[in-house]
Amino acid sequence: MNRVLPSWNDGPARTAIIEFVEAVTAEDGSNYVKPDDRLAVFDNDGTLWSERPAYFQLLFAMDRVKAMAGDHPEWATTQPFQAVLEDDLEALSAGGKHALAEIVAATHAGMITAEFEDMVLEWMTSARHPKTGRLYTQMIYQPMLELLRYLRRHDFKTYIVSGGGVEFMRAWAEDVYGIPPQQVIGTSVETQYELRGGEPVLVRLAEINHVDDGPGKPVGINRYIGRRPILAFGNSDGDHEMLQWTGSGNGPSFCGLVHHTDVEREWAYDHGSTIGGLDKAWDEALEKGWTIVDMKEDWQRIYPSDD
Amino acid sequence: MNRVLPSWNDGPARTAIIEFVEAVTAEDGSNYVKPDDRLAVFDNDGTLWSERPAYFQLLFAMDRVKAMAGDHPEWATTQPFQAVLEDDLEALSAGGKHALAEIVAATHAGMITAEFEDMVLEWMTSARHPKTGRLYTQMIYQPMLELLRYLRRHDFKTYIVSGGGVEFMRAWAEDVYGIPPQQVIGTSVETQYELRGGEPVLVRLAEINHVDDGPGKPVGINRYIGRRPILAFGNSDGDHEMLQWTGSGNGPSFCGLVHHTDVEREWAYDHGSTIGGLDKAWDEALEKGWTIVDMKEDWQRIYPSDD
Repeated sequence: MNRVLPSWNDGPARTAIIEFVEAVTAEDGSNYVKPDDRLAVFDNDGTLWSERPAYFQLLFAMDRVKAMAGDHPEWATTQPFQAVLEDDLEALSAGGKHALAEIVAATHAGMITAEFEDMVLEWMTSARHPKTGRLYTQMIYQPMLELLRYLRRHDFKTYIVSGGGVEFMRAWAEDVYGIPPQQVIGTSVETQYELRGGEPVLVRLAEINHVDDGPGKPVGINRYIGRRPILAFGNSDGDHEMLQWTGSGNGPSFCGLVHHTDVEREWAYDHGSTIGGLDKAWDEALEKGWTIVDMKEDWQRIYPSDD
Repeated sequence: MNRVLPSWNDGPARTAIIEFVEAVTAEDGSNYVKPDDRLAVFDNDGTLWSERPAYFQLLFAMDRVKAMAGDHPEWATTQPFQAVLEDDLEALSAGGKHALAEIVAATHAGMITAEFEDMVLEWMTSARHPKTGRLYTQMIYQPMLELLRYLRRHDFKTYIVSGGGVEFMRAWAEDVYGIPPQQVIGTSVETQYELRGGEPVLVRLAEINHVDDGPGKPVGINRYIGRRPILAFGNSDGDHEMLQWTGSGNGPSFCGLVHHTDVEREWAYDHGSTIGGLDKAWDEALEKGWTIVDMKEDWQRIYPSDD
């Protein structure tokens, strides 16, 4: 018989996941949850794929900023654009996901949604990560991919709830994670409906509709799903409120944190990090007994192509 | 053998629906659409249930305005509140769905989402329609209920895309229409995440996040679903852009309009009506061959409890 979650080492994290799924799916058990309520939400950056040396969407957006800088002389002295033009990832990272959202809004305004999708897909199938030389879609975590599939086999609906741009993720999330567009929640810009030559289009505006980070995550979950998840996975303080919200329902719940502990196979960071900082959520995880996944100890493989 | 869509009379509307569904589900046909892409969107007010003498959510909100008016002396001279206090449905209707959204935002601000849901459910199970004396959930259209089920049996995902408040509809849409919360898109207010006595809550604010009407419908479809529907049903100019958007995809599509023609069993209105006005969408329906459902001719029954 095949072992479930094959890339997970035996240990408390793997055991906790399996025990939870068995408990909520046992029809005669006291913790049974009917399939309609089996909602699982996952952060993306640092939880389903890597986020170093910067959020991957930021690396994508930097290419656009550089291409457009000639028309925007003011960017040379305005953050976060100045940091992009100076390749100053540290200054950029200090701006957090808000800076990312601002750059995306500014560089992709006026573009129609279909063009944006094409541009993302082209980048995802050609750009290479500066350290590993891999396509970014090859830097997803194999153990989390197995977890997504394992949950779906047990009639969970799997959602992404990420600070990343929703249309950036939707372009490839179904192929890469098996998560369809309507189950991807993220930061979004305002769009405007227009007829161009009789054909309706949606134009992306330079105005943000929703910042799906921190307290914006439970807000986004309520807005898009309208129901509380029973399982949530994150890796940073940006996921703190989503984990709190998930852990405060009436029935059983599972809250998990991916802890970046593997400096050799991936990266190691947590407290005080500008990307993926993990402080308040770490303290609450210890206090409430949330499951902490130690990447170095718990994961046999990191990326799908690892041995 | 049971006849499908039993409450629909034989006629061009019923035939067009069945032919479309057979075409997109025939695996060997040139119009085959794979199940993941079988998305159907339905307006609610006037398409799935009645909307006279006013949008039902407005009747709900009016009760709240009256209860809170003592604390808001300014409402006596400020629209749309003045119209509520004077029971002036005509003035209220002239304000359209924007007035409705304003009233909902003002009267339900500060309330947490769970309290709001309880309040809606209490009203839906007790309040009676001024003309029919029925519960509002008994004033849904039986033929449309059959259409929703027929589509789901053919692996369509059915969505509501309505100018009504999303949390108002989500409270009962699953029980009444079989449409789960995550497939209900509507007008929404901003919410704020707070800890109250250590418990996380979402507080409804007096600020609108999304007006899901007119051009806001394709915007909402793109924001929440991220994929273009292949079937859309509406009844008024508020659905015009949603129908245009649905009808402009690359593959086969079906656009339908419910035409209120039955003054005896329901109401009769279309051009120039303040509620459910049907002008631009009517012209485009004729031009593009969208399916027009004549309630009087096409529907054997209107409400589930009709003979």
